[in-house]
Amino acid sequence: MANHELMRSANLLSVFNAVRAHGPITKKELQRRTDLSWGSISGLTALLLERGVLRQQSGESAQQPGRTPKGFTINPGKNLIIGVDINLQGVTGVLLDLSGHILASVAEPMEDNSRQALMPQCLRTIRRLLTDMADPSELRGIGISFPGHVNRESGHSIRIQHLTDFDGYDICGEIRAAFGVDAIVDHDTNCIAMAQHLYGVVQDTDHFLLVRLCEGIGMAVVHGGEALYGRSGATGEIGHMVVHINGPRCQCGNHGCLETYGTTRSIVERCVEGLRLGQCGILQEICGEMPPDIEMVMRAAQAGDACCGTVLGQAMAYTGMAIANVANILDPDCVVLCGRLAGYPAYVAGVEQAAQANLWRGGPLDFRVAERHGIAAAQGAAAMFIEQVFLKTIE
Amino acid sequence: MANHELMRSANLLSVFNAVRAHGPITKKELQRRTDLSWGSISGLTALLLERGVLRQQSGESAQQPGRTPKGFTINPGKNLIIGVDINLQGVTGVLLDLSGHILASVAEPMEDNSRQALMPQCLRTIRRLLTDMADPSELRGIGISFPGHVNRESGHSIRIQHLTDFDGYDICGEIRAAFGVDAIVDHDTNCIAMAQHLYGVVQDTDHFLLVRLCEGIGMAVVHGGEALYGRSGATGEIGHMVVHINGPRCQCGNHGCLETYGTTRSIVERCVEGLRLGQCGILQEICGEMPPDIEMVMRAAQAGDACCGTVLGQAMAYTGMAIANVANILDPDCVVLCGRLAGYPAYVAGVEQAAQANLWRGGPLDFRVAERHGIAAAQGAAAMFIEQVFLKTIE
Repeated sequence: MANHELMRSANLLSVFNAVRAHGPITKKELQRRTDLSWGSISGLTALLLERGVLRQQSGESAQQPGRTPKGFTINPGKNLIIGVDINLQGVTGVLLDLSGHILASVAEPMEDNSRQALMPQCLRTIRRLLTDMADPSELRGIGISFPGHVNRESGHSIRIQHLTDFDGYDICGEIRAAFGVDAIVDHDTNCIAMAQHLYGVVQDTDHFLLVRLCEGIGMAVVHGGEALYGRSGATGEIGHMVVHINGPRCQCGNHGCLETYGTTRSIVERCVEGLRLGQCGILQEICGEMPPDIEMVMRAAQAGDACCGTVLGQAMAYTGMAIANVANILDPDCVVLCGRLAGYPAYVAGVEQAAQANLWRGGPLDFRVAERHGIAAAQGAAAMFIEQVFLKTIE
Repeated sequence: MANHELMRSANLLSVFNAVRAHGPITKKELQRRTDLSWGSISGLTALLLERGVLRQQSGESAQQPGRTPKGFTINPGKNLIIGVDINLQGVTGVLLDLSGHILASVAEPMEDNSRQALMPQCLRTIRRLLTDMADPSELRGIGISFPGHVNRESGHSIRIQHLTDFDGYDICGEIRAAFGVDAIVDHDTNCIAMAQHLYGVVQDTDHFLLVRLCEGIGMAVVHGGEALYGRSGATGEIGHMVVHINGPRCQCGNHGCLETYGTTRSIVERCVEGLRLGQCGILQEICGEMPPDIEMVMRAAQAGDACCGTVLGQAMAYTGMAIANVANILDPDCVVLCGRLAGYPAYVAGVEQAAQANLWRGGPLDFRVAERHGIAAAQGAAAMFIEQVFLKTIE
């Protein structure tokens, strides 16, 4: 691209982003925020109105009667994006406009963890959202949140532990073929992180870690407002940080990974072993004939079950130590916890305490818990696509 | 800065960087590499000639007689930068021009680890380099490589373990006051990493880790060609990664940090303990009445001393595990090892083997050993300053 075209795109993008962040916004305010000339602002906004990206409010408002400057906002019915979150619980879809506002959402429980079941479920979710649209021809892109490593450039899955037949699969290719629009795919932790950054609990900083504590343990590293992707997209594997050199064997084949101590699955498995040895009396009372789950383990520990307390204590200690080890390397502004285990305040407090104790640098690390658990990954997958879709509309 | 000024600076910088990387380079080749118009290239190179940044070769060459296009190069006698490396061994200084070429260098052993001794030694080193310059008024900036965390923005030291009285000290302020030119300071691992990236073993990638294995263990994380600084510059503390939750107490106050196993100091201390218990027979023969050092420990292990072998084995295992833990999080293209321990090929091989065994993702990680051990930090500190000095010359 020649220099002047790059410059024009950059200027259009800075107008667009100013409207996204501050709309309704007047031409004068746009000029102040973008440092562009009055002539440039006039030309750029006219183009964006013509392309249907922006709209201009009517000149009068009830609050400010008389002739007031007309504010620009993102055009709500146009240039729509669908985000779909595929995860171990189910498939969730959202419909966004370029402002990031959610126009519709759907959610279904997972039918089967195979690709043969999940991809059709994903396509069905997208079709259901399309029927909610006044004008389906306004669909500009589909963003997929995927619970494993992906190659963002090519749209392929790289490696996924808990779903079958997805390794090396061209996820975006199938979506593009089915709907005829651009598609992107990203690791779910990155999608959740971007949703928290754009709309959630970390709008105030560009440098943070997001750690998902669930059936697996994943992490997004956000630096300068962007997720770090590394060589091939295989970043954030805090779950496979070795925290005990002679620890138990992990599903991945190594020994002593954090996931052997800190996932809901490993916590429950350790407590099942305690039950078998007759050491978890209170948990036994709570679960009776049922197999225990993480909720029962938490309740048993709360009620004083020493065995469950020890298992959870170890999980919190190793999780906090692993987070401190990452913070010692990347010096983030804050750590956002999400996932099932982040729903238990006592667990979050234990992880935070262990992390603070193992931090090398002075000063405490700021811990937060993510919002919008159900919908963040889908919203983030779509929202990461907004600038790309925008740049396409101005080509 | 207004948009057109930004654009002009960006264009000047892209011409400058093309000359740095490919000079001598003709106007036509510059146009091809920068995608700027002929008119722009003519205007920009004329300005850079006038400011003394570039010079133009004479029109004839022995290889290509007749009228050949005149190539631009960086003007060698102008716009000079001094880089100084302050470390536990001593003070090293280099004099660079904007091409990064080293015009002179000096080195002195450390007299004392206090600020009262080191800062005068640093100033003296700079003065010695100034006497090597034909025209000292050409000095444009001084870059300092410092063996601890610094605030790059303010030029202050943040925290340093092995030097006294430096915490919170305004290093750049003292340099600026003494020489009347701009100064920057950066963590030595970052300086070495940038020297390796610009002139050493990792010119081919923008994503790598550089791990320094010495009396302390430090790391630079280079992502997209830039060192990551995090919230306050306190990044890269792999030496304080907890690798054993109940491990020995570290100087930092925590337990089980990598530094308690993997520094030259901790390796020697463990072997001294072995000597005391009569377990290091071969080392005892080698060192006789002398206190052992890392060289003696390496020779003893090589000669079959089982105690030294065990200590080194543990150091390599934990260091490799810690590097794999970071690689699992950041997915770098390669890992560069430097520092005293990187000078022992058997040690490097052991660290690499342990790292590969603990990597989560498929495929081996590329390990390299840094070049120019003695001078890399000083050269990197100065070279990091080149673009900033350049931008100042075109103001």
